[in-house]
Amino acid sequence: MALRFAAAGAEVVIGSRSLERAEAAASAYNEILGVSLISGATNGEMLRRSEIVFLTLPFDKAVSAVEACRTDFEAGTIVVDVTVPMVFRAGAPEFVVPACGSNSAKIAEALPHGVELVAAFKTIPAHVLADKNLPLDCDVFVCGGSIEARERVVEAARQIPTLRPLDAGPLSNAGTLERMTVLAVQLNRRYKSKGARFRITGIYA
Amino acid sequence: MALRFAAAGAEVVIGSRSLERAEAAASAYNEILGVSLISGATNGEMLRRSEIVFLTLPFDKAVSAVEACRTDFEAGTIVVDVTVPMVFRAGAPEFVVPACGSNSAKIAEALPHGVELVAAFKTIPAHVLADKNLPLDCDVFVCGGSIEARERVVEAARQIPTLRPLDAGPLSNAGTLERMTVLAVQLNRRYKSKGARFRITGIYA
Repeated sequence: MALRFAAAGAEVVIGSRSLERAEAAASAYNEILGVSLISGATNGEMLRRSEIVFLTLPFDKAVSAVEACRTDFEAGTIVVDVTVPMVFRAGAPEFVVPACGSNSAKIAEALPHGVELVAAFKTIPAHVLADKNLPLDCDVFVCGGSIEARERVVEAARQIPTLRPLDAGPLSNAGTLERMTVLAVQLNRRYKSKGARFRITGIYA
Repeated sequence: MALRFAAAGAEVVIGSRSLERAEAAASAYNEILGVSLISGATNGEMLRRSEIVFLTLPFDKAVSAVEACRTDFEAGTIVVDVTVPMVFRAGAPEFVVPACGSNSAKIAEALPHGVELVAAFKTIPAHVLADKNLPLDCDVFVCGGSIEARERVVEAARQIPTLRPLDAGPLSNAGTLERMTVLAVQLNRRYKSKGARFRITGIYA
């Protein structure tokens, strides 16, 4: 995510519990791109400096990470959840059915009032994003409870070339996006690929 | 479905409770294509003559239709369920969460022993299929409990040009396909289209 947004000219702050680790990641990414748009910060500092925060954690670590920073969130911040509740059993990807319909809904409940959760980028493999010269040639589905927050994430995603952002409606669709990702990972396994992702035919957005 | 398969050279039998209605539909479709590959029959006769049967009914009529023909099914027949449990509330499409995870799973339970259910074609709009000169430019996701039955449906679908069939794994993925369809219908509404359908980028099948 950091690479694709910085490659598009956006300023990116990588947050971590450890400032050192954050700064090391930031300078490695700056070097890959030949830019200095990416900086590292502690999570608290990152939250204070960011308008849109991407939660790029393992699915079962997201709620505790949000709770650990609960007092650092500022009202008006948009949190984008990219997690997918999936486990591998004997190598086969399986969806972990979340109690509230989606992992995003669970995270939304943990956020302080005034912080909007948006689910997006769930269906795009991390290593496809990381391969900075690979055309994405896919859609990013953006859903969430606030139309305004969705629109802001759609606008942000529009900066990334070869990617088409689509407003995918209310947060209740997050479970659909999470299941789609599990399907894509299963297709990767069957067709010996790593890059399965979705594109909608037949609409002009 | 009848139009696309007959256009690809397959023999198609349209079943109905009324022989007259089935024959009327068959001759209308033959005329559209300029072929005589499509015939009409009562449901019982259609089931006896068909290797692969497509259930193209409203989602909440499929189980009773299957039960009405229960004794006419022959072992080895493959039933392809294309239904999507969706209702419209104030014009907005909504997924109707099925008790057993998907409408397909519900239908599978109603089928006699030896008849395999495959879920496919759920994500492709009927009117896109019916527009015989429109390139489909999408994938058809095929899932079901029997690998062999899936393979036969994949082979059948491969006859249709501009369509790519993908083996989408076990029947537990049918609920994913049904939800994807609801998402596509919501995207149609938002982006003023009627043809939203899915294509996977990044795999070579």
